[in-house]
Amino acid sequence: MELKDYVTTIPDFPKPGIMFRDVTTIVNNEDGFAMAIDQLVHTLDGIDFDLVAGSESRGFIFGAPVAYAMKKGFVLFRKKGKLPRETISEEYDLEYGTATLEVHKDAIKPGQKVVIIDDLIATGGTTGAMVKMIERLGGEVVKISFVMELAGLGGRGKLKDYDVESLIVYEGK
Amino acid sequence: MELKDYVTTIPDFPKPGIMFRDVTTIVNNEDGFAMAIDQLVHTLDGIDFDLVAGSESRGFIFGAPVAYAMKKGFVLFRKKGKLPRETISEEYDLEYGTATLEVHKDAIKPGQKVVIIDDLIATGGTTGAMVKMIERLGGEVVKISFVMELAGLGGRGKLKDYDVESLIVYEGK
Repeated sequence: MELKDYVTTIPDFPKPGIMFRDVTTIVNNEDGFAMAIDQLVHTLDGIDFDLVAGSESRGFIFGAPVAYAMKKGFVLFRKKGKLPRETISEEYDLEYGTATLEVHKDAIKPGQKVVIIDDLIATGGTTGAMVKMIERLGGEVVKISFVMELAGLGGRGKLKDYDVESLIVYEGK
Repeated sequence: MELKDYVTTIPDFPKPGIMFRDVTTIVNNEDGFAMAIDQLVHTLDGIDFDLVAGSESRGFIFGAPVAYAMKKGFVLFRKKGKLPRETISEEYDLEYGTATLEVHKDAIKPGQKVVIIDDLIATGGTTGAMVKMIERLGGEVVKISFVMELAGLGGRGKLKDYDVESLIVYEGK
């Protein structure tokens, strides 16, 4: 089986016309999950880096195992108000309204090289906010790897200055 | 360094008298994070199991790498309304009010042996809800391992029929 065979597609969810790509069935299966993490690790071949960054909460499921497998630290990007110490934050656009993501100020030191791992790139809003915060803290984004990409939403255009790779690309939205 | 040396303690957060134990500084450090996952894996020595379960969102950071390291599938327990397919749910008590946790109905099959991994046991409400759902789906909870335990909050008393282990035990609240 290929990685995409473990994805469950739910037509017309959460609304008519949307094909929802459910990543939980990759994660739930021992072969699917190992394949996803091994392939994400493989996207980092030849990349020199210090930290893996992931966003709450599905990003944690892929980023944390990659950090562990590569013997690196993991940086948590969380929704507003969840981190207990001094943070910086960035607001980003959602389909309706905005959301705010935060990271601890001391989580990335100037000059550290960071890879971002996430489950999905759609419009690229979340990842764009993470990139901004990593750079505000003096870090350098050296790679961005996703499990799935919804190419029809154009998120990659927001990240055109970066090395972006997706394990599975869906042409639609 | 020992694992507990990577924990940051924040006095009087979120309110006076509470010593908040911040696990993010374990995760952020490559040695601390590897040590935490290796020690969690070690709590499973000699345990025969099929799946690792973790709850949104800090539980994902520890549970997913353990699942990957042991070549098992990972079961996501999420807050209400986040999972796209048919779920079962359990309500549990918080300090003020209640919360609801959900899991996909097909995430655990009858007879599967499940270990629960989480960052923290406080009052045991979250873990108790997870245990109930695993058993409602016909699964068997064969081990419950935490990074940190706040022993003064008595959560272990709610789990007395299970094999519970914590890497770091704080006597207070």
